Parts: sequence; C-alpha cells; structure tokens
Amino acid sequence: VTSAVPLQYRQIFLRQRPDGIPQAEHFGIRTVPTPELGEGQFLVRVHYLSVDPAMRGWLSAAGNYFTPVPIGGVMSSFASGEVMLSRHEGYPVGARLMGMFGWQEYAVCDGSEVKRRIQDADEPLSLSLGILGLNGLTAYFGLMDVGRPIAGDTVVVSTAAGAVGSAVGQIARIQGCRVIGIAGGPEKVRWCKDIGYDFAIDYKQGDLGSRLSALCPDGVNVYFDNTSGEISDAVLPLLAVGARVAVCGTASVSSWSPWPMGPRVARHLLVKRARMQGFLCMDYEARYNEGIIALKSWIKRGRLKHREDILDGLERAPGSIADLYRGDNAGKRLIRLVA
Amino acid sequence: VTSAVPLQYRQIFLRQRPDGIPQAEHFGIRTVPTPELGEGQFLVRVHYLSVDPAMRGWLSAAGNYFTPVPIGGVMSSFASGEVMLSRHEGYPVGARLMGMFGWQEYAVCDGSEVKRRIQDADEPLSLSLGILGLNGLTAYFGLMDVGRPIAGDTVVVSTAAGAVGSAVGQIARIQGCRVIGIAGGPEKVRWCKDIGYDFAIDYKQGDLGSRLSALCPDGVNVYFDNTSGEISDAVLPLLAVGARVAVCGTASVSSWSPWPMGPRVARHLLVKRARMQGFLCMDYEARYNEGIIALKSWIKRGRLKHREDILDGLERAPGSIADLYRGDNAGKRLIRLVA
Repeated sequence: VTSAVPLQYRQIFLRQRPDGIPQAEHFGIRTVPTPELGEGQFLVRVHYLSVDPAMRGWLSAAGNYFTPVPIGGVMSSFASGEVMLSRHEGYPVGARLMGMFGWQEYAVCDGSEVKRRIQDADEPLSLSLGILGLNGLTAYFGLMDVGRPIAGDTVVVSTAAGAVGSAVGQIARIQGCRVIGIAGGPEKVRWCKDIGYDFAIDYKQGDLGSRLSALCPDGVNVYFDNTSGEISDAVLPLLAVGARVAVCGTASVSSWSPWPMGPRVARHLLVKRARMQGFLCMDYEARYNEGIIALKSWIKRGRLKHREDILDGLERAPGSIADLYRGDNAGKRLIRLVA
Repeated sequence: VTSAVPLQYRQIFLRQRPDGIPQAEHFGIRTVPTPELGEGQFLVRVHYLSVDPAMRGWLSAAGNYFTPVPIGGVMSSFASGEVMLSRHEGYPVGARLMGMFGWQEYAVCDGSEVKRRIQDADEPLSLSLGILGLNGLTAYFGLMDVGRPIAGDTVVVSTAAGAVGSAVGQIARIQGCRVIGIAGGPEKVRWCKDIGYDFAIDYKQGDLGSRLSALCPDGVNVYFDNTSGEISDAVLPLLAVGARVAVCGTASVSSWSPWPMGPRVARHLLVKRARMQGFLCMDYEARYNEGIIALKSWIKRGRLKHREDILDGLERAPGSIADLYRGDNAGKRLIRLVA
C-alpha cells in the first residue's frame, strides 16, 4: 500500500489575513515534500475538503473560539480521507477518518486532528463532511438542544436551503412542527419546498417582515438563525411568548470591525420571555453518536434529504469560501481531491 | 369597622399617553364617591403604592405584555392594604393584601386584583411591595432560574443599588459568587459596598468597559440586566463561555419609537455559547411561595438587606415614575397613603 504515497503533495496556505470574507487572493498554493513519519504519526490521503461559513472566523484575528490560522500556515478545514501509511496503532492503514486535516492533498497526523472514524464501510466519505458530519450534527443539536421544538410549533429557519438549514427544516418537520424557510433566490426556495418546508420565502424579493408576519399569525416559537443582520431583524419582532432563538452563525455580517449596529433585541426577549442562545456543534462532541444514529435513521427512512455541490481539484479551494457567502452553491459545498 | 370608610376618595388617572417616560403632567387627580359594594366585592384601604420602572410599559401603546392603561383610567399599580368592608367570603374585613389596587386611596375589588395575602401579622405592609414582593421575587427567580449562578461565578448586576438589583447582588453572594455592581453616583456605589458587593462601579465616571474588564479577567458568567443600552454594550463583550444574561428590564432606553439601535449581540452569544433570556416575575406566580420562604429566611439571618425610600401622599405619585428613571430614589420607592 505504500506504493501510492507520492514524494510530494500540494497544500493551500494563508498568504494574507482577510478583513472581511476570505477571497482566493488571500491564499497561495505550494508543493511540499512528503515527510518521514515519526513514531505515533500516520499519513492521511485527503479525499474531500469541506467548505464552511465558519472558516471565515478561523482566519479572523478578532475574538473567536479558535486561534486564527497563522500567515503561512495551511488553511484549517474539516476533511475526510483514508490512512495510507501508519506508525500509530490506533489508526492503521485503510482506516477512514473525518478530521481537521486542512486544505492539502495529504496530512501528517498524530490523532489529535481526528473527529470521527467512519466505521460503516458503505458510508461515502463525503457524507461525513455534510449530513453525517458537522452540518447534520449542527442542525441536530442546535435545533433539538437549543431550539427545543415542540410538535405544533412554528419554526423559522434562515439560510433554509443550506447544508445546515435544510437539515434543520426537515428535522423540525419530523418533530411535528410547521416549518418556514427563508432563502435567497427561486432555486433555493424550490429546494426548500421539495424537502418539505411548509412555506419558503425568497428574502431577495423584499418585504420579508410582512410576508413572514402573514405566515406566522401566532408568532414564531423557534428561530434557527445562520445570518444575523436584516433577516433576524425581520424575524425577532415576530417571536411568540417563550420563543427560542438558536444562534448558529452570522453569515450576513461581512465584517465585525467596525462592529455592526442593529435594532436592540433586549425588549423583544423581555416582552416575549424569549431565549436567544449561541451554540457550537463542537461542544456536543460527547453526544455526536446520538446525533449520527438519529440522522442515519432518518436518511434511511427517506425523511432527511441532502444535496452535495462538489468542485474538483485543490485549486478550487481558495475561492470557495467567498463563493459560499455569495450563495453560489446548491447544497453542501465540497472539494474533491480523489476522483 | 365600617365607620372608617369615607364617602369619597381620591385617585390618579391617566390624562394623556406619554411618548417616553411618564411625567407628572400625564396624570390627573380626581375625587370619586365610594360606591356601594356588590355581592362578591370588597373594599381595600390602600396603605402603600409601589413605584416600578415597568409602569412605563403599562402606559405604552407599543407591543407589551399588558393591555395599556386607558385614557381616563386609574393608573395601574401594585399596592398593599387592608380590607375595610367585605361582601366576599374569601376576603374578610381585616385581611391584609398585596395586589393591583391602582393609584387610589381605596379600591373596590373582586379578588382578581389580589397577588398575595400577607399572613404573617408581624410583616410590615410595605415589605410586600419590595423585598418580599415583586422586587425580591424578580431578583430571586431572575437570578436563580434564568441566571443560574454557580459558586465561584463572576456575576455582574446593572442598577445594582436598586430595589431589584440590590437583592440580586446579595442573593448572588449567598450563592458563593463574586459580585460586581454597576450603579450611578457615589451614594449608590457606597450602598452596594455596604450590602456586600465585592466591587461596585459608578458608570457616570465613564470608561465602564475597561474598568469592568479589569475586574473580570475570566469574563462575566452571569449578567443580570435592568438597563439595556450602553451599560449592556459594555458588559456583553466580556461574557465568559457559557454565560447567562437575564434580561429583567430596559430602563436606559427612554423610547422604543423609533426603535433604538445598538451593537449586534449575535456574535457575542455565538462565540461565547451564551444565553440571553428575558423573564417576567409574573410567570413564576405558581412558585412565589418558594421565593418568599427563601427571601424571609435570608432577611431573618441578616444576609439580605433592603432600603425603602418613602414619599407621603397620593399627590406624590404622578411624578414618581420619572423620579425613578432619573435615579432620584435611594431604595425601593413607595408612596405612603396611611400614616
């Protein structure tokens, strides 16, 4: 099996720290020699790279939940692949793994990067980066643990057609909720309806507040938000008494310097006795298995659909975060390195 | 006992709906004849009127948790008093009650106004409007149920010297927390220190953010907020991971029309996996007894101090809400009608 290991491989590094959304020109590509493995190390051949909105934050020097990627460092990324060479008992050749392997064709690992071992041989490696990875788990724990939907609730989801949002909407339907999606453009609205949203609104058509208000005569019980900004500003005045707002992301805010202003939320939370709560999927690591079991069973029964939007080749990675913020993708954006 | 009932009494009514903070001129005073009691009614002689920041909201036509007081209607108010005449079995002459009796010397009641019966004959009637009333209960449930302090937590309280805030700070200390109060002016800061706050900051001295930051090297675990506005803007960037923000009031906002803008909070909540939650004391009505028992035991053991700031005479009521927003009071503001 060692025959497949090349003498060198390519990686994407951070050339310049972006102020706002990372663009292709903030990154460079370089070829490095494949190093000798030390004791306890193993070499992963990366099959798929994940492109996630949160990656913008991983590059930001501003307050965040990660130390930012250093200038010259390999861009951090969730990725999935297979062990090609190993000097680590726990990760033998052939093991299929999902972890923080970075934007590179091969990764020298010691195990600290690994997030999940893909035991099921039938499970495609791409799924571990989407519906059976951080996206599905973010949807599952954010909705179930923070949003706490109750059958009959009206649940509103922003970025409703996205990799996380589309799973949130479907899981909320499975819980017996009435689900309204907010998405940008007719194609995304159509996909929302295809996967079972009761209603889907194209926010680009304008007048979101009054259209949403007409669909929520009894208010919004759960709001799963990936946007912050103007979309949230339209939803928060419609909260029902006892509402829960799960803060999953802030995709609509292009920069936090200077800090953006918006309508104050305290009064909505007070009058509606509502809860607004941020969460990170990583904080649920001890419960990932619970989420994976639930997600797999829903996929198997045809109740949870997903889409992948795959680009081929490492050279597509640098521009892919900006693509995501433009909403160019239809489904989970992945970069495939192994055909 | 009927000999004490007068033929007429005075009441304060709403003359004009205020845009912002209610001022004396928004109210009028009038004398009305004491009506005959119908079957099931009783007459309460009001001893104390409560003056609360929330009363501004009771007058506002904007989205709120109450139907606003109508023009010409008696101003709503918590009050305490004694039954003078009764045609209601449940409320005999001599019963001591706290309830929504309004800004008037006597109130004709049917029982729906009553919030609490004061059983303990030694308990002064004023306490049921302060530390053993909505203020103490708001502090107790807001801190314990929404803030969820853990021994060792850093707890920050705004309006720290107020009727609610001073109880919050002391209860947090009883829970083993490190407690920092934010108050306006040296007298209030001194009172905070007298009752056991570890630190107290006068926000009128400026530079709140950096002074608070220096006192909270590990961040703020619980923020009990009565202000919204600039004080919150200084506290929220300092939240610790897993922080809880109890939204009790929005006293620093003088008008919600136009809706005020402020720094967006979603990013703080996300990065810190924090929870920001509004609550109303009234939602805990079924648990009031639990709160009263705890508060009484702490008062008895000298661990929970309180102050009353009493004005005499019904004619002091109309200007008293504005006084409160100016911070003129030192302790729970009450209007005494019976010397």
